[in-house]
Amino acid sequence: MTIYEIIRRKRDGGELKRAELELLIQGFVAGDVTDYQMSAFLMATFFTGMTKSETETLVRTMLASGETVDMSSLDGPKVDKHSTGGVGDKLSFIMAPIAAAEGILIPMISGRGLGHTGGTLDKLESIPGLRTAFSPLEFRDLVGQVGMAIVSQSSEIVPADRKMYALRDVTATVECIPLIVGSILSKKLAAGLDALVLDVKVGRGAFMDSLERGRELGRYLVDTALSLGLRATAVLTSMDSPLGAAIGNALEMIESVDVLKGGGPTDVRETSIELAAHMIHLGGVSSDLGEARIRARTALDSGRALETFTRFIVAQGGDPAFIDTPSVLPSAPVVREAMAPAEGYVDSIDALEMGLTSVELGAGRLTMAGTIDPAVGIELLVSVGDHVEAGRPVARIHASDDSANASAAARVLAAIHIADEPPARTDRILEIISQVE
Amino acid sequence: MTIYEIIRRKRDGGELKRAELELLIQGFVAGDVTDYQMSAFLMATFFTGMTKSETETLVRTMLASGETVDMSSLDGPKVDKHSTGGVGDKLSFIMAPIAAAEGILIPMISGRGLGHTGGTLDKLESIPGLRTAFSPLEFRDLVGQVGMAIVSQSSEIVPADRKMYALRDVTATVECIPLIVGSILSKKLAAGLDALVLDVKVGRGAFMDSLERGRELGRYLVDTALSLGLRATAVLTSMDSPLGAAIGNALEMIESVDVLKGGGPTDVRETSIELAAHMIHLGGVSSDLGEARIRARTALDSGRALETFTRFIVAQGGDPAFIDTPSVLPSAPVVREAMAPAEGYVDSIDALEMGLTSVELGAGRLTMAGTIDPAVGIELLVSVGDHVEAGRPVARIHASDDSANASAAARVLAAIHIADEPPARTDRILEIISQVE
Repeated sequence: MTIYEIIRRKRDGGELKRAELELLIQGFVAGDVTDYQMSAFLMATFFTGMTKSETETLVRTMLASGETVDMSSLDGPKVDKHSTGGVGDKLSFIMAPIAAAEGILIPMISGRGLGHTGGTLDKLESIPGLRTAFSPLEFRDLVGQVGMAIVSQSSEIVPADRKMYALRDVTATVECIPLIVGSILSKKLAAGLDALVLDVKVGRGAFMDSLERGRELGRYLVDTALSLGLRATAVLTSMDSPLGAAIGNALEMIESVDVLKGGGPTDVRETSIELAAHMIHLGGVSSDLGEARIRARTALDSGRALETFTRFIVAQGGDPAFIDTPSVLPSAPVVREAMAPAEGYVDSIDALEMGLTSVELGAGRLTMAGTIDPAVGIELLVSVGDHVEAGRPVARIHASDDSANASAAARVLAAIHIADEPPARTDRILEIISQVE
Repeated sequence: MTIYEIIRRKRDGGELKRAELELLIQGFVAGDVTDYQMSAFLMATFFTGMTKSETETLVRTMLASGETVDMSSLDGPKVDKHSTGGVGDKLSFIMAPIAAAEGILIPMISGRGLGHTGGTLDKLESIPGLRTAFSPLEFRDLVGQVGMAIVSQSSEIVPADRKMYALRDVTATVECIPLIVGSILSKKLAAGLDALVLDVKVGRGAFMDSLERGRELGRYLVDTALSLGLRATAVLTSMDSPLGAAIGNALEMIESVDVLKGGGPTDVRETSIELAAHMIHLGGVSSDLGEARIRARTALDSGRALETFTRFIVAQGGDPAFIDTPSVLPSAPVVREAMAPAEGYVDSIDALEMGLTSVELGAGRLTMAGTIDPAVGIELLVSVGDHVEAGRPVARIHASDDSANASAAARVLAAIHIADEPPARTDRILEIISQVE
């Protein structure tokens, strides 16, 4: 079986054998399979998909391409969460401290932002002194000491994913369920997890734009995780409008602290509690999901989550001064409010447009080589359903100069749709997909 | 519009604008668009196709990537034929001399064999001294002097096709109608043609395995040619069984001479006459196709086609001695007959298997870097419909050693299916697709 025949078989909708997928992926990592043959294979897979059995082999082969982190010396359930990426998504900074405060160990390997979605590492690095590059041993020790750590992916972990993702990103083969599953699960298995909570975003600002596609991805992830011995739950959450009010790196860290102190936007607070409850439940700390929800809420309201968050920031070298004094974080030179053009009810806030506008401001990057500005971003002053008066502020733009501010303000106002009638109430949490063992 | 967005639009079934296709193809030839982005685009095109308008732009952009041959100083209709590739296809050596004898100018740029189909240039080069590499000016002068020339593609002609074909060949994106049309028509337009006869092979030994797919390709080629100002007719011919009796380079040259002398297999003779008649008709030498058929048959039977063939061989540096003395061509050391295992009627002869067996003998190549043996091949001693006796010879194998001979004999016998009843009679020429202007 040659690489040509493997591509051709996938193109024609056939199922590949384990040895064939191994030949392809191992050969690609070793440099024997060319980028152009791999990209033809990836595009063929976009169209013809993979069977469950092929996807499992894909995950295993990708995992085997690199080293794994040995967390076995740590005593306690290792649980992580993964988000498929949204706009204003700062949930990790809240849910992880909540779950860690309840005895869950959270070895989180995160990524940088690309396209219209922000990156967890980019947000964290707006904190002076904070580091995210650690060796596998340092990573394990951080998790052991604090209960959680958020680090960048080292080059030894799943090199097949780094190489494949770089290619998918420039060949329009990202939005393919088996390839998404291969990428997520291989990295999570490499971190030595017992269980995984998946936050599958659905809507305008997410990769999966319909509930059906989100459900398909969630079910596929949960089922494949189970067959690989990993407990998993997928929570489908709405990404039609941005999560919370802040979009931008330092702005999102400040909002996270607000929520950890008991304030902040309700959607961020409630979604964080729900996801943390699933981590606590899947990790076996609570055998009952209802009890896990109560534990999560109590950990947040008692201040224990904020305490864990503070220890996490310090352990990774960050200056915790911003927790009490947000103004120590980078701030933008031109901060101005944008005013509602008409009276009415906020009918929708376009998450994709908000994400793209924040990238245009400098908060994100469009290629991996791009740099980001931690200070810039958007603060929404209204939520979906709010009544607004014409001429009253609906957003605050943090920009590097006047012209960027004006340009962003126009895009932001166009993305906040105002209607005569209030919209139907919608929930952030749409559906929960559990394993059936 | 970035290359990423172009790939994505094609992936999602959208129609690309002229400027977008130009950016892609010109960038690819210039080396600015990577092989892996082009191969993702080619695979996406395999699945979503192209509109007529996109295909026209593809042809024009590929054509513009290189030089064209200026044939305008030659007085007479310039007509070529193109075959989509079959097994035992030596028709060019017969139809071109026929049409040239009737006043058609034939500037033929040919390819080498790849996969199970033989190459026109490989067959020609079995003649001692014969050259196929000529400059554009030499090429024009050969056509002017003899009425025909068969040369290899210079690196200045349609570099986009050479680069794209090399990539398609290793990424399983050859069998895609708009890409096939782009490749064929860009090269033919570069040769300064007025008209083109297309021999679209259909069946077991062809790229298009069904009549429906062949019809689709033929109609697409003819329509696109018309919209680019090129008169064209497609003749669908059957490639379930090999054309004629000889498969192999020198063997096919010998069979071609037999036909030019008035003998040889009927299917080769009749198909050559039909295709030559379309060249004569499309070139405007006969305004009536029936008359063109009579002219073609007369040119062959009178010996004028053989005379033109002889001048063509000499003009390209070949020693014409083989025309009278076939034994001067390379001959294989081990020539043996293979005997029918049972009595009955030849029901079918698998063209694909015959092609693959001839490649295994050394008559073809599986990669562009492979070398070929001009002497080896297969001579069929029976045709479909013949009655055979058990133990009587059905094929003669020309091999480089005993073991290759024995192995090929077994494959050849397995590919000649013998049945109790004679098969239904089938024609080589299945359908003619003309332009409706």
